[in-house]
Amino acid sequence: MSHLKLHIPGPVEISQKTFKAFSTPMVGHRGQKFKDLYGRIQPRLQKLFKTQGLVYLSTSSAWGVMEGSLRNLVKKKVLNCMCGAFSDKWFDVSQRCGKEADSLKVDWGSPILPAMIDEKLATGQYDVLTLVHNETSTGVMSPLGDIASLKSKYPEVMFIVDTVSSFSVVDIPFDSLGIDVLLTGSQKALALPPGLGLFTVSKAALERASTVNDRGYYFDFCEFEKNAAKSMTPSTPSIGHIYALESKLEDIFEEGIQNRWDRHADLAQMTRDWAARNDFTLFPEKGYESNALTCINNGAKAGGRIIDVAKLQGLVKDQGIMMDGGYGKIKGATFRLSNMGDETEETMNHLFQVLDECLKKL
Amino acid sequence: MSHLKLHIPGPVEISQKTFKAFSTPMVGHRGQKFKDLYGRIQPRLQKLFKTQGLVYLSTSSAWGVMEGSLRNLVKKKVLNCMCGAFSDKWFDVSQRCGKEADSLKVDWGSPILPAMIDEKLATGQYDVLTLVHNETSTGVMSPLGDIASLKSKYPEVMFIVDTVSSFSVVDIPFDSLGIDVLLTGSQKALALPPGLGLFTVSKAALERASTVNDRGYYFDFCEFEKNAAKSMTPSTPSIGHIYALESKLEDIFEEGIQNRWDRHADLAQMTRDWAARNDFTLFPEKGYESNALTCINNGAKAGGRIIDVAKLQGLVKDQGIMMDGGYGKIKGATFRLSNMGDETEETMNHLFQVLDECLKKL
Repeated sequence: MSHLKLHIPGPVEISQKTFKAFSTPMVGHRGQKFKDLYGRIQPRLQKLFKTQGLVYLSTSSAWGVMEGSLRNLVKKKVLNCMCGAFSDKWFDVSQRCGKEADSLKVDWGSPILPAMIDEKLATGQYDVLTLVHNETSTGVMSPLGDIASLKSKYPEVMFIVDTVSSFSVVDIPFDSLGIDVLLTGSQKALALPPGLGLFTVSKAALERASTVNDRGYYFDFCEFEKNAAKSMTPSTPSIGHIYALESKLEDIFEEGIQNRWDRHADLAQMTRDWAARNDFTLFPEKGYESNALTCINNGAKAGGRIIDVAKLQGLVKDQGIMMDGGYGKIKGATFRLSNMGDETEETMNHLFQVLDECLKKL
Repeated sequence: MSHLKLHIPGPVEISQKTFKAFSTPMVGHRGQKFKDLYGRIQPRLQKLFKTQGLVYLSTSSAWGVMEGSLRNLVKKKVLNCMCGAFSDKWFDVSQRCGKEADSLKVDWGSPILPAMIDEKLATGQYDVLTLVHNETSTGVMSPLGDIASLKSKYPEVMFIVDTVSSFSVVDIPFDSLGIDVLLTGSQKALALPPGLGLFTVSKAALERASTVNDRGYYFDFCEFEKNAAKSMTPSTPSIGHIYALESKLEDIFEEGIQNRWDRHADLAQMTRDWAARNDFTLFPEKGYESNALTCINNGAKAGGRIIDVAKLQGLVKDQGIMMDGGYGKIKGATFRLSNMGDETEETMNHLFQVLDECLKKL
């Protein structure tokens, strides 16, 4: 079966250049060549994360780092902000790690707002907060800047922020936000193959972690810090991913970070315009639409056109494109179009053209 | 800098065929194409693990599964068998996970023997045992068959066996051994890029795991089982690794498993013969030498020739080969030659020829 161009919200399409780097002949992970590789990319990673600290590479998908962050930081109780499938799951994972956890829950499609968090943190019960910046399941981007500004009011609360589907899509300046953990995965807007987690942590988070006795080894922040200082990783790294990352960092800085953010904003706007032209409404609350993907309402809430998504998926597939049909409890009642990664006006216009043709056949 | 052929004990050299599969255009991990891929390789994985159960694919290096196994299974106390750097570290990791742990420790170079384990387990203190089958740091292979036969005497003890550097080197029949966890990594004898953990677990281990409340999510055995039953993984998998694994399974079954074991035995014997010809002694206790790699004594214990290993490494590197210079506390006092993966008589003879020439220059 021939390849289907991916327009699902991750994994996304991988370029031939990236794949070539992914298949660089193998090197030893304790040798100079690996240290040189990690050392070479560290400054660019720091520039992308906007941090003076070290950026860590985890041989895992982002969930590993999401779970690891809980194991490193929660001593008292974690507040899990829930607004979609992935943020909801984080609450479940907190409990599965044996941590005391509470939820701050809004309807799917709504963002998490600072006032809600402020009210909860004011109780003094929590030492950790988890936030999914861009809920991939609902296409909602919560206002991270405003939320992060609460950190100064609650310095003892560790702010863990998942940016799996917003990293390199919008500006997320780690140091100036003042948050404690910023984590992402490789297979979304970075347009790398899945299998690598990237993250950075604050000094306060490293200090907190050092006092948590059952944080383990595999995701231990202190081990990542100790090893990264020598341009190594605690466990055997996925070396292919790191070569691919080097190649992708070249692409990103060649394009320019600002240009990359602008491109994602433009392509997301094009997608929203396409939806409006076709009488669809959007699932996210107005003003909180993601720039990485567009979640289109298809009956999940009132208003707008309703179509047979499964049938549309099939027709689009016949045209060589893989599109999403909604996720979790809003499967079928929404569908999502991704513009993450290397997409351009041209590739998005091709997607819209295919969709337009297929809609006529429904 | 040009590529150095790897003869270190992992990562090992990757074939062009494997790299091609590694770079297969991306597919969605919740879609039919991924399920078809995992479904296609599952029977071959089961044949290789010699199990009727499901084989799980973890987006991590082996250490993730090693730690995860502790988090899934230890309720009372774990006995960590220690005979080298990696098995020693497992004891440390047990403690870092907040588990009660004891060590069964032998000198590096010696194997773990059944009688030692029997004596410890007879105390009734333990509900989990960890064993590194092939200690990559010392080149010692402990007698897994004899050790596993203790399982019938201690059915309530979960036997976790790391076969990182022995998997596909020697026969390790999971079901008939009767052990509870068999885990390995991609970058050793499977000759895949690093970044994938492979494992299978017994029904008893799944049952035990289901009663452990803080086992987490990322390495949760029950989640792996539930997802693998639908040919999926709990978290986003490293899809490239799984395509590469499919390609490597083709290679393995084309060669024949028995032929693969025989080849590794022959190449290891050639390496031991090379050492003897050059007046070196071996570090492992006689009768427990690994078939995956040869750990050569260079002053770590009495007897045999002693050379400047760092200098030899440099000379060998000039000839385009990366060799090991010993690991951990026996660095420099041993060195290791790997014959894992796709090595042949021809490639090993080339290594020996280069070593012979370089030894003359010391």
